[in-house]
Amino acid sequence: MVERYSLSPMKDLWTEEAKYRRWLEVELAVTRAYEELGMIPKGVTERIRNNAKIDVELFKKIEEKTNHDVVAFVEGIGSMIGEDSRFFHYGLTSSDVLDTANSLALVEAGKILLESLKEFCDVLWEVANRYKHTPTIGRTHGVHAEPTSFGLKVLGWYSEMKRNVQRLERAIEEVSYGKISGAVGNYANVPPEVEEKALSYLGLKPEPVSTQVVPRDRHAFYLSTLAIVAAGIERIAVEIRHLQRTEVLEVEEPFRKGQRGSSAMPHKKNPITCERLTGLSRMMRAYVDPSLENIALWHERDISHSSVERYVFPDATQTLYYMIVTATNVVRNMKVNEERMKKNIDLTKGLVFSQRVLLKLIEKGLTRKEAYDIVQRNALKTWNSEKHFLEYLLEDEEVKKLVTKEELEELFDISYYLKHVDHIFERFEKE
Amino acid sequence: MVERYSLSPMKDLWTEEAKYRRWLEVELAVTRAYEELGMIPKGVTERIRNNAKIDVELFKKIEEKTNHDVVAFVEGIGSMIGEDSRFFHYGLTSSDVLDTANSLALVEAGKILLESLKEFCDVLWEVANRYKHTPTIGRTHGVHAEPTSFGLKVLGWYSEMKRNVQRLERAIEEVSYGKISGAVGNYANVPPEVEEKALSYLGLKPEPVSTQVVPRDRHAFYLSTLAIVAAGIERIAVEIRHLQRTEVLEVEEPFRKGQRGSSAMPHKKNPITCERLTGLSRMMRAYVDPSLENIALWHERDISHSSVERYVFPDATQTLYYMIVTATNVVRNMKVNEERMKKNIDLTKGLVFSQRVLLKLIEKGLTRKEAYDIVQRNALKTWNSEKHFLEYLLEDEEVKKLVTKEELEELFDISYYLKHVDHIFERFEKE
Amino acid sequence: MVERYSLSPMKDLWTEEAKYRRWLEVELAVTRAYEELGMIPKGVTERIRNNAKIDVELFKKIEEKTNHDVVAFVEGIGSMIGEDSRFFHYGLTSSDVLDTANSLALVEAGKILLESLKEFCDVLWEVANRYKHTPTIGRTHGVHAEPTSFGLKVLGWYSEMKRNVQRLERAIEEVSYGKISGAVGNYANVPPEVEEKALSYLGLKPEPVSTQVVPRDRHAFYLSTLAIVAAGIERIAVEIRHLQRTEVLEVEEPFRKGQRGSSAMPHKKNPITCERLTGLSRMMRAYVDPSLENIALWHERDISHSSVERYVFPDATQTLYYMIVTATNVVRNMKVNEERMKKNIDLTKGLVFSQRVLLKLIEKGLTRKEAYDIVQRNALKTWNSEKHFLEYLLEDEEVKKLVTKEELEELFDISYYLKHVDHIFERFEKE
Amino acid sequence: MVERYSLSPMKDLWTEEAKYRRWLEVELAVTRAYEELGMIPKGVTERIRNNAKIDVELFKKIEEKTNHDVVAFVEGIGSMIGEDSRFFHYGLTSSDVLDTANSLALVEAGKILLESLKEFCDVLWEVANRYKHTPTIGRTHGVHAEPTSFGLKVLGWYSEMKRNVQRLERAIEEVSYGKISGAVGNYANVPPEVEEKALSYLGLKPEPVSTQVVPRDRHAFYLSTLAIVAAGIERIAVEIRHLQRTEVLEVEEPFRKGQRGSSAMPHKKNPITCERLTGLSRMMRAYVDPSLENIALWHERDISHSSVERYVFPDATQTLYYMIVTATNVVRNMKVNEERMKKNIDLTKGLVFSQRVLLKLIEKGLTRKEAYDIVQRNALKTWNSEKHFLEYLLEDEEVKKLVTKEELEELFDISYYLKHVDHIFERFEKE
Repeated sequence: MVERYSLSPMKDLWTEEAKYRRWLEVELAVTRAYEELGMIPKGVTERIRNNAKIDVELFKKIEEKTNHDVVAFVEGIGSMIGEDSRFFHYGLTSSDVLDTANSLALVEAGKILLESLKEFCDVLWEVANRYKHTPTIGRTHGVHAEPTSFGLKVLGWYSEMKRNVQRLERAIEEVSYGKISGAVGNYANVPPEVEEKALSYLGLKPEPVSTQVVPRDRHAFYLSTLAIVAAGIERIAVEIRHLQRTEVLEVEEPFRKGQRGSSAMPHKKNPITCERLTGLSRMMRAYVDPSLENIALWHERDISHSSVERYVFPDATQTLYYMIVTATNVVRNMKVNEERMKKNIDLTKGLVFSQRVLLKLIEKGLTRKEAYDIVQRNALKTWNSEKHFLEYLLEDEEVKKLVTKEELEELFDISYYLKHVDHIFERFEKE
Repeated sequence: MVERYSLSPMKDLWTEEAKYRRWLEVELAVTRAYEELGMIPKGVTERIRNNAKIDVELFKKIEEKTNHDVVAFVEGIGSMIGEDSRFFHYGLTSSDVLDTANSLALVEAGKILLESLKEFCDVLWEVANRYKHTPTIGRTHGVHAEPTSFGLKVLGWYSEMKRNVQRLERAIEEVSYGKISGAVGNYANVPPEVEEKALSYLGLKPEPVSTQVVPRDRHAFYLSTLAIVAAGIERIAVEIRHLQRTEVLEVEEPFRKGQRGSSAMPHKKNPITCERLTGLSRMMRAYVDPSLENIALWHERDISHSSVERYVFPDATQTLYYMIVTATNVVRNMKVNEERMKKNIDLTKGLVFSQRVLLKLIEKGLTRKEAYDIVQRNALKTWNSEKHFLEYLLEDEEVKKLVTKEELEELFDISYYLKHVDHIFERFEKE
Repeated sequence: MVERYSLSPMKDLWTEEAKYRRWLEVELAVTRAYEELGMIPKGVTERIRNNAKIDVELFKKIEEKTNHDVVAFVEGIGSMIGEDSRFFHYGLTSSDVLDTANSLALVEAGKILLESLKEFCDVLWEVANRYKHTPTIGRTHGVHAEPTSFGLKVLGWYSEMKRNVQRLERAIEEVSYGKISGAVGNYANVPPEVEEKALSYLGLKPEPVSTQVVPRDRHAFYLSTLAIVAAGIERIAVEIRHLQRTEVLEVEEPFRKGQRGSSAMPHKKNPITCERLTGLSRMMRAYVDPSLENIALWHERDISHSSVERYVFPDATQTLYYMIVTATNVVRNMKVNEERMKKNIDLTKGLVFSQRVLLKLIEKGLTRKEAYDIVQRNALKTWNSEKHFLEYLLEDEEVKKLVTKEELEELFDISYYLKHVDHIFERFEKE
Repeated sequence: MVERYSLSPMKDLWTEEAKYRRWLEVELAVTRAYEELGMIPKGVTERIRNNAKIDVELFKKIEEKTNHDVVAFVEGIGSMIGEDSRFFHYGLTSSDVLDTANSLALVEAGKILLESLKEFCDVLWEVANRYKHTPTIGRTHGVHAEPTSFGLKVLGWYSEMKRNVQRLERAIEEVSYGKISGAVGNYANVPPEVEEKALSYLGLKPEPVSTQVVPRDRHAFYLSTLAIVAAGIERIAVEIRHLQRTEVLEVEEPFRKGQRGSSAMPHKKNPITCERLTGLSRMMRAYVDPSLENIALWHERDISHSSVERYVFPDATQTLYYMIVTATNVVRNMKVNEERMKKNIDLTKGLVFSQRVLLKLIEKGLTRKEAYDIVQRNALKTWNSEKHFLEYLLEDEEVKKLVTKEELEELFDISYYLKHVDHIFERFEKE
């Protein structure tokens, strides 16, 4: 993982220490289950918990010899707990520990993401409301379309992120499954009761049919979800980048005091944070495909997924966490230039009101095609000159015949476009 | 789309005719809503429905001139419905029609997939039960691990496909949203009531905040889900390919009478269907990334997603449908060689029972490490000779001291590994 | 393949008829080689060529029975050529025909792409020269940086496309390999001499070590190259989309007479062609990954690559061809608004000249840091007001001490930024 | 980057220290060029080289304030070199340094990869020759096809890796371009002569047309190439995994003394190294797409590629290096079981010789179809019984009529399949 995008608390989940700690938790949940079911003496779990230590150095040293990380861990802990080592890892296969611990990590990571995403939603909701009635030009194809409200734009982001909250909740659910079912998932050496109890201590559910591992469709779902969240942030980032361009300048991402835009051009305030978010979303997308390829493991498992997951799990969760935290800061502190928004609406000299004119002409009895031709004719004139669209319409003989000056002027009114904004916001308040 | 993988009814969804028909449905739902709300005269919808025809040739011809497909369609229909053309497409932007019709198609495609997937589940459940107590060797890393049941293997596929049913239901829900909200999603020229009514006629819900289009995170979710289903099928296909290899030959995919395996080697029965499924899953994965890239459209939309979707929507849904139908046939009709499965279990001369020996030795008082060393020692001897693992154990001095012959022999029992299989199946019956 | 993006001559390469014709060519090259080497009677090839017909219907019908396309083709042709059928496909395995024919198709497709790409280069070179000295603002991060020439921008595209020409030539070379080496590549039933001769008739080289097929790293290289070309076109398309946005409007893609920008907003001229190119590049990227996955076929081959290639080869080559042809048209006919370019340079009121001021202050003896602080201070003032950067500098006490008014004014000169443009162009003329 | 897959010397390229060192090299190459051209006093470069130190801590501390890494580096070095700071970074934009240093790193990384790949080739060549005449069954679709030589299989890997050597050389060439051309690539503040000289000191060439950065198609080409190499290694890894499966067991990857195959099943020798290589190839594939997306930067550059490259450059080069080194070790030390190979050829009781029988029957005057039917009939009988294919043929009335017993027996000869192996090897010796 790239150091500069690693933030606590997500970062702390992925240390070697944290990994071994999760392994120990799983092992202890199993001995506790054994105790509970009377299969081993009472007190074993408590004793192991007291004596076992997470000694990363030691485990690594043994691994050099065994070339197998769980065997090394079990031997390492074994050397600390004396007689109780007989009950430690009893009946388990490595993947019982690894995969269950994996789920713990992914659930935990998911919760951190979820919490940050909800905070992001709160900020989006607040900012959307702040600019609820701020007119801005809506753009399609990068070209001015019709006026809308800046708050509505932000509400769109909010709405997408709320969907992402639900998806993320679902994704966490998807990986909330562990397995203590032995080498090929048939519980040969450890009965289902032990799995059920042990997993319940850990807040997980038993995989209905495991192989040696938890099936990887769950993880693919999780990673796909993360990539969708990231792409939603990318959408926001791309929008802000557009709005910050010199010719538009309606929004600027926060610019830290002392920050330098360029080593060469001191005047520059560049949307580098949003560009970074754009790039990071590319990485998030990149993690989906290997996760999908991991699904078709051979037979009761091969271990090809493991090397992939050493990259993808820590990198994807940390990268997305960084993205959410960063996007939250950007949206919370971005500078919104309402004056400039108003000015930009006027750039096309009234052309953005063309559809209203079209509909008015139809209302007056023209066919759609007739109306369209008239409007386009005057629109093209406006486009190629300095005169206002309204002026051309007022001069147009055909228009004159059908519409009065007052009627025409009435059509050039921004508030017409914002009249349903409150209604759209209300749809969320109802929930 | 590749013709040979196009099957009805999925195929029929994606004809030009079907597309225009959906557009017309959307337009008529809107005029019906207008009527209902008293905004246009009663009877318009009925009249248009009677007079409008889907004339693909005509629409294409007009499009050559307009370079815009919806404009061409509206003009084309307009030419058939006389005066009513004033009410047709009134207040709408192209994407109101396109995107809502898109959702209709994706929902419909999703339902076809869902139905076929449920049938696949039925077949999987049946086959799993048929082989519930058929012993087979479980393999990890392609190497024999411990015995398990073939039915359990198939139950694993079933379990994954059941998850996929749920995911697909969710994915359909995700795309069940239309939009009749105008050029930039602010309902400037068509009030929210019209959208609500019109969409309800079509079985869709209003997008809470649309831009000119329905946000593309929904479609990315849908496509991701399809790729996950495909990868699950790939997992089954890869398993069968393994089981059909000459040295294993436990399962064979159905081989049609008259079919020829090879133009050169007439004896060959190749798992080409499962290989095809493997390849098709690669294509399904390929469609995810463009869908994720489609999310970050510029401002209130750019149209870059559209060309992508012309490939991805028809190709992904048709390909997956082909995969499900084909996989269903393969699993339903595959030849399972139970005799060969039993023979293969014995290939390692008892080594697959090694963990039981290990646990017995621990039970007898050895530490895990001591037991492990003894077992591995005898295992390696067996591996390198023609003698049975049990024989070596019976000769081992250290083993002899701890375990009787009877006890040892008891450990080499396949039924031990199948004892929880019924329990695992029951977990599904409860649902 | 999506019909609307299928253009001749590329399209014609991928018909069923063309495919069978290539198969026949390969078969005939082999019989001709046999004849040449005296292994079959003289005249066979000539006779087969005269009697064999490409009867798509017939081959398809036989395939329904055999479930194997090459077997069906061989039987079909066999039924037309009487006795000579003994020599037809003699000693060959299906893949000898399929894979060699594949290479023919890919080489042919590559050449069509190459030719169109070279034409695109010609257009780029011409347009670059046309606007060689047209000043425009260079933008980094979407923010004005320093003036440059529009011709230089286009020359950058040209330079990238020239690299792509070289890459494409290389990619064609990479797939110019066939194989007539039998079922597992060991020439068991057909000697290397036959392969060598037959392939030379077809303009191909023998694969140094084939399995049943030509190794798929060649095809992956080819597809990666196509995706890189596509991304280069995407870069141009994205640039034009930016330059066409309402606030910038320096360039417009060609707008057909009669074309309608929007069904709702008749004034709109949207860069939909460039947006389409952007979307198509996403598809081209999508084809890379399955091609890379195709490399690791099992043993001497499995057929999983084949279904992938049924999509990818026709779709990728046709899509890219469409992209090149379309991009050529866009660049050739785009409307360049030189006046607007000049106006836009002035938008920041002189700030784009800030680095020159910085360097002048350093020249006058300040440290970089001192100079930077002065420039940034005045830049920020300019940014936040209506006054020109030069005016602020002329008022700045520290600046005044070091630089005269004349010296300062001299720094605000666009030609300074274009002084090396000729030199950059010359670097290409030398070649 | 995942620590366990980071190996020196590749690892050392990507430390913070190494990065800053490269930056300094670029800056010094520029001052040296200035000196050479008489633009700054003689001796500056020498003095800076003596006084500047790579103080990672210091640069990081300054960056916290500036939020810009190059500005921080320049200030940091500036604080060490007194008066000479006036000449340091003079006329440069950050990307002149960053991108040129980037190229240095990628070239260096490429060379390390190239050297290791050549060593891998040597090992492959040696192993191929060692088993040149070792018969083994060729498998297509996982099903026995015809005998071939194991050396030929390995020669196929060799042949692919030799292609990869050439591709990698080309990829290195592709990224051997730097740029010292200023903020928008027009050499406004630093003349082309400086770039030319400075880059030549560094072993790089000037980018023919740069923007603020070197165009990213070069880097995409590089990453694509790395993924192709990785997929080639994956192909080898997958083959060995197949050959190591219990039922085949023709090859085993090296198994370290003391290594434990499973914490539960001590007998297991699993091809985990080859599985790891398989997984790592998935990651290598994952890096291609973000690299392709990086090509379409906005205008004269946006910085979205940068965050991507912080992951992809170090991770992809280190991962591939780990793969090559590991694959070399696997192939060099794998255990090849020639006896088992011979035994496996016999598994199908002669069916692998079916094509020879087919061709013999045609030779005797049958049509291909007649011969095929006879062979398939007997092949299917063999398939379903314990009897040898030859025995069935000897009993077949139609066969008897055409072929003598001696002729038939002669067809079942492995050496027939190896007769051209020497020729194939010789094709490489010629080069």
